[in-house]
Amino acid sequence: MTGNSFGHLFKVGTFGESHGPAIGCVIDGVPPGIALCEGDIQADLDRRKPGQSRFTTQRREPDVVQILSGVFEGRTTGTPIGLLIVNQDQRSKDYGDIKDKFRPGHADYTYFKKYGVRDYRGGGRSSARETATRVAAGAVARKVLGGGIAVRGALIAVGDNAIDRARWNWDEIDKNPFFCPDPRAAEQWATYLDAIRKDGSSIGAVVEIIASGVPAGLGAPVFDRLDADIAKALMSIPAVKGIEIGAGFAAAALRGEENADEIHLENGTPAFLSNNAGGTLGGISSGQDIVARFAVKPTSSILKPRQTLTTGGRETTIVTKGRHDPCVGIRAVPVGEAMVAITLADHLLRHKAQCG
Amino acid sequence: MTGNSFGHLFKVGTFGESHGPAIGCVIDGVPPGIALCEGDIQADLDRRKPGQSRFTTQRREPDVVQILSGVFEGRTTGTPIGLLIVNQDQRSKDYGDIKDKFRPGHADYTYFKKYGVRDYRGGGRSSARETATRVAAGAVARKVLGGGIAVRGALIAVGDNAIDRARWNWDEIDKNPFFCPDPRAAEQWATYLDAIRKDGSSIGAVVEIIASGVPAGLGAPVFDRLDADIAKALMSIPAVKGIEIGAGFAAAALRGEENADEIHLENGTPAFLSNNAGGTLGGISSGQDIVARFAVKPTSSILKPRQTLTTGGRETTIVTKGRHDPCVGIRAVPVGEAMVAITLADHLLRHKAQCG
Amino acid sequence: MTGNSFGHLFKVGTFGESHGPAIGCVIDGVPPGIALCEGDIQADLDRRKPGQSRFTTQRREPDVVQILSGVFEGRTTGTPIGLLIVNQDQRSKDYGDIKDKFRPGHADYTYFKKYGVRDYRGGGRSSARETATRVAAGAVARKVLGGGIAVRGALIAVGDNAIDRARWNWDEIDKNPFFCPDPRAAEQWATYLDAIRKDGSSIGAVVEIIASGVPAGLGAPVFDRLDADIAKALMSIPAVKGIEIGAGFAAAALRGEENADEIHLENGTPAFLSNNAGGTLGGISSGQDIVARFAVKPTSSILKPRQTLTTGGRETTIVTKGRHDPCVGIRAVPVGEAMVAITLADHLLRHKAQCG
Amino acid sequence: MTGNSFGHLFKVGTFGESHGPAIGCVIDGVPPGIALCEGDIQADLDRRKPGQSRFTTQRREPDVVQILSGVFEGRTTGTPIGLLIVNQDQRSKDYGDIKDKFRPGHADYTYFKKYGVRDYRGGGRSSARETATRVAAGAVARKVLGGGIAVRGALIAVGDNAIDRARWNWDEIDKNPFFCPDPRAAEQWATYLDAIRKDGSSIGAVVEIIASGVPAGLGAPVFDRLDADIAKALMSIPAVKGIEIGAGFAAAALRGEENADEIHLENGTPAFLSNNAGGTLGGISSGQDIVARFAVKPTSSILKPRQTLTTGGRETTIVTKGRHDPCVGIRAVPVGEAMVAITLADHLLRHKAQCG
Repeated sequence: MTGNSFGHLFKVGTFGESHGPAIGCVIDGVPPGIALCEGDIQADLDRRKPGQSRFTTQRREPDVVQILSGVFEGRTTGTPIGLLIVNQDQRSKDYGDIKDKFRPGHADYTYFKKYGVRDYRGGGRSSARETATRVAAGAVARKVLGGGIAVRGALIAVGDNAIDRARWNWDEIDKNPFFCPDPRAAEQWATYLDAIRKDGSSIGAVVEIIASGVPAGLGAPVFDRLDADIAKALMSIPAVKGIEIGAGFAAAALRGEENADEIHLENGTPAFLSNNAGGTLGGISSGQDIVARFAVKPTSSILKPRQTLTTGGRETTIVTKGRHDPCVGIRAVPVGEAMVAITLADHLLRHKAQCG
Repeated sequence: MTGNSFGHLFKVGTFGESHGPAIGCVIDGVPPGIALCEGDIQADLDRRKPGQSRFTTQRREPDVVQILSGVFEGRTTGTPIGLLIVNQDQRSKDYGDIKDKFRPGHADYTYFKKYGVRDYRGGGRSSARETATRVAAGAVARKVLGGGIAVRGALIAVGDNAIDRARWNWDEIDKNPFFCPDPRAAEQWATYLDAIRKDGSSIGAVVEIIASGVPAGLGAPVFDRLDADIAKALMSIPAVKGIEIGAGFAAAALRGEENADEIHLENGTPAFLSNNAGGTLGGISSGQDIVARFAVKPTSSILKPRQTLTTGGRETTIVTKGRHDPCVGIRAVPVGEAMVAITLADHLLRHKAQCG
Repeated sequence: MTGNSFGHLFKVGTFGESHGPAIGCVIDGVPPGIALCEGDIQADLDRRKPGQSRFTTQRREPDVVQILSGVFEGRTTGTPIGLLIVNQDQRSKDYGDIKDKFRPGHADYTYFKKYGVRDYRGGGRSSARETATRVAAGAVARKVLGGGIAVRGALIAVGDNAIDRARWNWDEIDKNPFFCPDPRAAEQWATYLDAIRKDGSSIGAVVEIIASGVPAGLGAPVFDRLDADIAKALMSIPAVKGIEIGAGFAAAALRGEENADEIHLENGTPAFLSNNAGGTLGGISSGQDIVARFAVKPTSSILKPRQTLTTGGRETTIVTKGRHDPCVGIRAVPVGEAMVAITLADHLLRHKAQCG
Repeated sequence: MTGNSFGHLFKVGTFGESHGPAIGCVIDGVPPGIALCEGDIQADLDRRKPGQSRFTTQRREPDVVQILSGVFEGRTTGTPIGLLIVNQDQRSKDYGDIKDKFRPGHADYTYFKKYGVRDYRGGGRSSARETATRVAAGAVARKVLGGGIAVRGALIAVGDNAIDRARWNWDEIDKNPFFCPDPRAAEQWATYLDAIRKDGSSIGAVVEIIASGVPAGLGAPVFDRLDADIAKALMSIPAVKGIEIGAGFAAAALRGEENADEIHLENGTPAFLSNNAGGTLGGISSGQDIVARFAVKPTSSILKPRQTLTTGGRETTIVTKGRHDPCVGIRAVPVGEAMVAITLADHLLRHKAQCG
């Protein structure tokens, strides 16, 4: 409660709007004694920040993070960590044209209906700009998880163009502007997205997040299942419309004997013969990789004229100029990683509390 | 916290195991003055209860609910509503054979790793039996939502066999044992599932939940988005592996101009030309139908022998006799409805608090 | 949220009314593997139950507790523990006379204003009968705290009649009907309370709770201080009007050098020279005894005629016959112990999560 | 959870240390459309800020607040309100002498035991400096409460020197440096405190908070009683050791007929003949003034040498120079008001959700 915080024991509360003076977050519950500096967080922010290629928005935001509290002499103190990112490039005037219009596919209409307010400056609180604070919090979550747990993400499809999983290579991720593990797919996407961009349009995408090294036992029965919390975490990212764990929707077409992962011994320790479960059974981690995927819809801010209403209730058309991502799915990769890392950190602490 | 409750203002906490003396739930936050009797709840429980056709488990549970508190002279008092369902048909001996074995695809292994306990009696707390209490709570949630909001579900695919959406007819739902809106698909499924059942196997399915009459404005920014909370609610149902809102994964292959739902006036009131959003924008309801789908994996308890380990760590094989659903997706329909109703009731009260 | 639960990691949710079919609670978050049976809980319930002497209400409630879930083969499983106490002696007819009258000092008026409901049967949810479920939960909390932490309570004043602290003897607590550690005070109170009772009146009291063996480090900064949570826990007991930790109100008259407890070494380990702090500094336990006191107002149900209103808004007078405690402070002793034990168990688990 | 936030629907999370770069808070759940500017908040901060008389610490902190989010065009938007106060006068060198010593009566020892960290700079997170953010949040809470509800506080005793309640005059509160409603007491206190201050000592105090105009019906049954939440809110203020509601500890010495407030009609509306209840019955507001008192211990930082330990575990003595309040109870008055206002705002929104 009441909407802008996530987690119970590793708890992140965020604030700030796209074109306000600053955005930030407060992280409560971080264990004491963990080495943490701004550089640790900045590294993750830099992976998400805009304007790094022609395939993301040209808004210039250095996204420099300041630690305001919770760290003393280079280590966490156990008290809340306040993080601040000052907004730099708020060109609110870009939005003058659409001040009184609801952008289709955006939250303009629903925020107006809910709150009676039209913060036209880039969507205000509903802007994906707030996800910078999630990435910052995710960097702290990674510290809590420690070196043994790795949370990595990849873009696995842009529009209809999926990667070839046989070519999956984690080392490729940072060698292209798409977080793509398949170098050939990345080349194809560059051409494909250039055409989309020049056409003033946008396209959806699919992201996959894999967490490895997660110990068995994280997650709680019934409602706060690890997979349920990951589903919420990922669905809370702007523009996400679908979530899968493990086999996902494909599991609906499987028979019991195809789906249930058999268990045997490998070198004397329990191991599974497959991972349709995506690393959770009954909502509790099994020790296998946690595998989650999410579908990102195409950016709604496009140059094509669209039918809509004014805040006053009249019909009109809208063209969204501004500076936008032709494929918002790209920058969703580090955000997805952050949300999974935060969810895991929360459940790691919950597990310690009850079963540690 | 700590795992067995859901919701903040319409808050449901559940307890009980498959083969314990009783299961139940406590609902806190229900507004006072709402007419409520056991019959209201029983009607929903009867839709979920086992043994109603040859396509669901033959365990005989009448699932009779008692209201223990929170209702006085036929109306809610505003205090917690305690609901109790006494277990009747606990044939724990069915489980003697598998007492020391982890059933693949079940939570046996992960609960054991987490808690160090092997409650072999039908999975204990991890059994889908606990979903009866969710359905009971969902019936109360419907009362809170009132007559203007309808939450309905349908089975839309069994294995590879999807319905023809052109034949969708809500009136068919209760005329076949599958909650299927397409009578021809229902006929086909009967034959198909008979074969699966006789083969000692099981199959996955897809469920769709539609909430109509939901006012614009429900949901909170950033984390407690309505769609994020629905995703968590549905992913928390046993055996669910995927969630979609509106266009879902299909949105990943759409262009911006295909996906974003345009707005115009219909008879002077705002209306959308499509519903790819599935009724939420920025995580807040738009007034359109809320449309959510979820994939259910096949029942893991099957008669086929499967490779697994004993609790002592030895390799073995397992055959799960007991009484099981060949397609657990069927009974997931009323559970999915209940979870969406609970989520909506919670957000309705949250909206009243802040914007009422 | 939303009012009927307490704690975050050791979380107790209660339900039930004075004259409904049953009262109960659900405890979520209990670590697995703890030995627990109904007898463990019953022992605490028996200390609180009514009708054990002429100084408490003559309502006959055996308060037999049933464990409905969360325990398997004599040990906790880590899943919610459901506890049920069936009401036996609901003489609702006692309340016929006052059905339409607000009892002064009771919650009748405020519940009616809040909920629009008049559950005249013994106060419904506002009855102190619900505290039985707290005592049951407190018994489970003691198990979580383990043998090294003792939470004990005593009645230290009845009306103006305080004990002599020099005569404090824990062994006396169970030898008189008052939980009084001073045998001479107990004798005096018996005479005093007989007079009050025969006069159809009632009297207030002061209870002291001492928790010993509490390790240093429990409690969280700023809001969820251990002392703040104890204050809430104790103030939530019906009829409580004041709370003190350590020196309490007397600290307001002390100078800095009189109040701050000096620290030195005793046998090589840190020790305090006094305990004005009552065992907490900055809201975090210091390892000293936690000392809390609370004031209990006199029972409002008395035989003296009192001026009041009807639910219809007319002036009237009321005499409350029924069966009532002349000094409700007596039975508040085990309830206070339970609330402190619950608070400590919650903070013990919280501490493990962050610093364990 | 997890310690640094308060409230459920009007939710305040705070961060920052005494000598870090800044302190701040985030308020989530504020209804939209409320006029709010920095001046509204500054006015309350100015009442608490240090250095306004010789009776409070000489640390120079202008406590200038910035609104970082949640307000657009002068009105709240319904999204989180981020507030920031940059620290100005952090003379950490003052603390060099005591870097390795636990100050008696302070949280140094317990924070060290809990977190393994000694943030010697003015107590770090445990410093009362964090209460500035509470006062800022309290100013926003007052806006939510609206003009009809007034939350006012007064210092009613300094050491043994209590006011004469017959001379209570709210207009005097801002005419002396003590928030004292009795001008004669204020005069006496000035002399008294001068002596204490010159002696290098400190003294405790008692604060009373009165909330008038509170409608009947705020508060929830059983645990989240309005009075229980106020008790927690006030006990969470640094240095507070006791809480009373209404008659408080005096109620322990009353008989039922003396204590229970009778009800009658005044000009046709329900009214009480006394207010021993302090405005709550069964934890729900009655419409009477909410009356709460709290005892504040003397400042522990004094010039008198005191026996203590070093962080290394050796015995030593300590003299706390720095800049300190001779009577920290004075500045606790606006903090107490803020905490009561926050609690009421939270319950006002909760009431709207369930019964609105």
